[in-house]
Amino acid sequence: MSKLQQLQTYLKENQIDAAFITTPDNVFYFSNFKSNPHERLLGVMVFQEAEPFLVCPKMEVPDAVNAGWSQEIIGHLDTDNPWNLIADAIQSRGIKVATLAIEKSHLTVERLESLQKIYVQANFVRLDDKINEMRVIKDEIEIEKMREAARLADYAIEVGCKEIAEGKTEMEILTAVENAIQAKGCKMSFETMVLSGPKTASPHGTPGDRKIQKGDMILFDLGVIYDGYCSDITRTVAFGEVTEAQKEIYNTVRQANENAIAAVKPGVRAMDLDKIARDTITEAGYGEYFTHRLGHGLGISVHEFPSVTGTNDMELKEGMVFTIEPGVYKADVTGVRVEDDVVVTADGVEVLTKFTKELIIL
Amino acid sequence: MSKLQQLQTYLKENQIDAAFITTPDNVFYFSNFKSNPHERLLGVMVFQEAEPFLVCPKMEVPDAVNAGWSQEIIGHLDTDNPWNLIADAIQSRGIKVATLAIEKSHLTVERLESLQKIYVQANFVRLDDKINEMRVIKDEIEIEKMREAARLADYAIEVGCKEIAEGKTEMEILTAVENAIQAKGCKMSFETMVLSGPKTASPHGTPGDRKIQKGDMILFDLGVIYDGYCSDITRTVAFGEVTEAQKEIYNTVRQANENAIAAVKPGVRAMDLDKIARDTITEAGYGEYFTHRLGHGLGISVHEFPSVTGTNDMELKEGMVFTIEPGVYKADVTGVRVEDDVVVTADGVEVLTKFTKELIIL
Repeated sequence: MSKLQQLQTYLKENQIDAAFITTPDNVFYFSNFKSNPHERLLGVMVFQEAEPFLVCPKMEVPDAVNAGWSQEIIGHLDTDNPWNLIADAIQSRGIKVATLAIEKSHLTVERLESLQKIYVQANFVRLDDKINEMRVIKDEIEIEKMREAARLADYAIEVGCKEIAEGKTEMEILTAVENAIQAKGCKMSFETMVLSGPKTASPHGTPGDRKIQKGDMILFDLGVIYDGYCSDITRTVAFGEVTEAQKEIYNTVRQANENAIAAVKPGVRAMDLDKIARDTITEAGYGEYFTHRLGHGLGISVHEFPSVTGTNDMELKEGMVFTIEPGVYKADVTGVRVEDDVVVTADGVEVLTKFTKELIIL
Repeated sequence: MSKLQQLQTYLKENQIDAAFITTPDNVFYFSNFKSNPHERLLGVMVFQEAEPFLVCPKMEVPDAVNAGWSQEIIGHLDTDNPWNLIADAIQSRGIKVATLAIEKSHLTVERLESLQKIYVQANFVRLDDKINEMRVIKDEIEIEKMREAARLADYAIEVGCKEIAEGKTEMEILTAVENAIQAKGCKMSFETMVLSGPKTASPHGTPGDRKIQKGDMILFDLGVIYDGYCSDITRTVAFGEVTEAQKEIYNTVRQANENAIAAVKPGVRAMDLDKIARDTITEAGYGEYFTHRLGHGLGISVHEFPSVTGTNDMELKEGMVFTIEPGVYKADVTGVRVEDDVVVTADGVEVLTKFTKELIIL
């Protein structure tokens, strides 16, 4: 059963007349059409039985056709009111909309108000959880794409390590890494991070003109998109020499990463993984410096469902893919983060990212 | 009067108790803190009199302080419910919220529902138009940053033209352009576009492995961020030779661009500019191939208010900055777009992008 058919079944079972999908990554999931429409309206309208339609800027209609969308497309010009076009298309199908499912975590209040003007009496219900439930389980085709995305991320780290040299700037190393991926015909899945020395202690720092020097630790956080699917890896390496204090933090974070990975299997809860990693770090005395969740789902989006936090009691299921990325950020010593992408298998875990976690001293 | 003070005055005049700003670019506008929080909550809450506060992920608190935010910051962990922290901070100020202004074009339905749970009786009003009204008029400090961003965009086009050679791929040329900008310590304002030959006819095409060959036209669409402000330029050049049909389209688009620019001054309406460019193109017989609006506002965001369309009757005012980018996309001949960034001055126009619009034949 195709993804669209699964959604149609859900609409029937729940007496929902239509579902309007507007998150670009969800539009891609259901239509294979990837687009960043900026402020313009992009969406897929799905019904229980009637033919679905795609709404997109008129100039992107050929791209949607090329991507494989073979059903109706409503292309709108900047001078059109796309809501009227949508209302007409629904009416032409003879459908009365009493209940409409929307993505409440994406649809803006303004767009909801536009829909409410058309369907004054309608009940607007949440579609987010159903789509999350579908997207969170990757099929073998999706996982194979993610394996390749992870291989490319491993390669990017390898390139980054080779580029490290005294006096080079973070941006120079970053540029070499991105060029190597572009040369493979791929794009990064988010803004590449190369942070050195004290800057490693900022979990969301910005690469810049700082020159690498002996004694630096260098943190790479990067990912690659392969055929629409993302990887996300972090490795922290040392240049020249490394102090005992830095080594202790490195080993602690690595151990937290490995302990959490070892626990991955169906039935374990997301919060259990967070606790295992956090306990490892807390027992080593660094608990207060691990200031973020353990990880996040990964797939078409670089951050997607589920969130691997200390409060998420969702049980893991076969086919889920997420990151495990504990970190310790101690300003006077170093920041270290070690991040892998993992798939929940029938009886355990497959780690997609394979770059070594031995402490590399270049 | 600071931007925050202007907003506070507006709240007083309109009996609005608080305004919650969540669009990252608007948060930057009011706080100087630039952040991409992904799915995490980022916002600035502003009151008539009381101290405003910033809400951001806990790990970004130091970055917000470094950016110059000296008032309260509510840092939230992934395990916190940020809405409770917000409610507490408002209560601690002794403020009763009867009317709360939100950005309806950005705030999601889910977040509105979270606010509605805290303030069950509150009236939620639109803040978007006030912020647009403020942001649309750039002050001299902002315009100076945009002049520099435009200079960098001109430079990027210059680099791109030098890189064009038989057999080079679009991606190779794109990489060289982006490296040149990174070497200046800057980032691109959106994904750089280098399209060649038949691909120029797709207004939102994707650069790839196509090799440049004699007789191609090559379209560059790119922009640079300088100190938080964006530029956006398009130039179309020819490699080797150019047919009369291609030249005719080029000259038509260039004329449309220049006719619209010549008409820019306070009091003219956005729709008048669109009409001038569209008439030029229609009279030359290419009207059906100009499939998008004339331009869009530019500033902190690469697409912002106002939209320069055939239906926007907004009158231009001194300090507005937007693009003028007519295009003709005729699949069997070529696509051509010529885009400049312009500022409305007291009595006319300043064109920020200065790269030549003569048809370059390389």
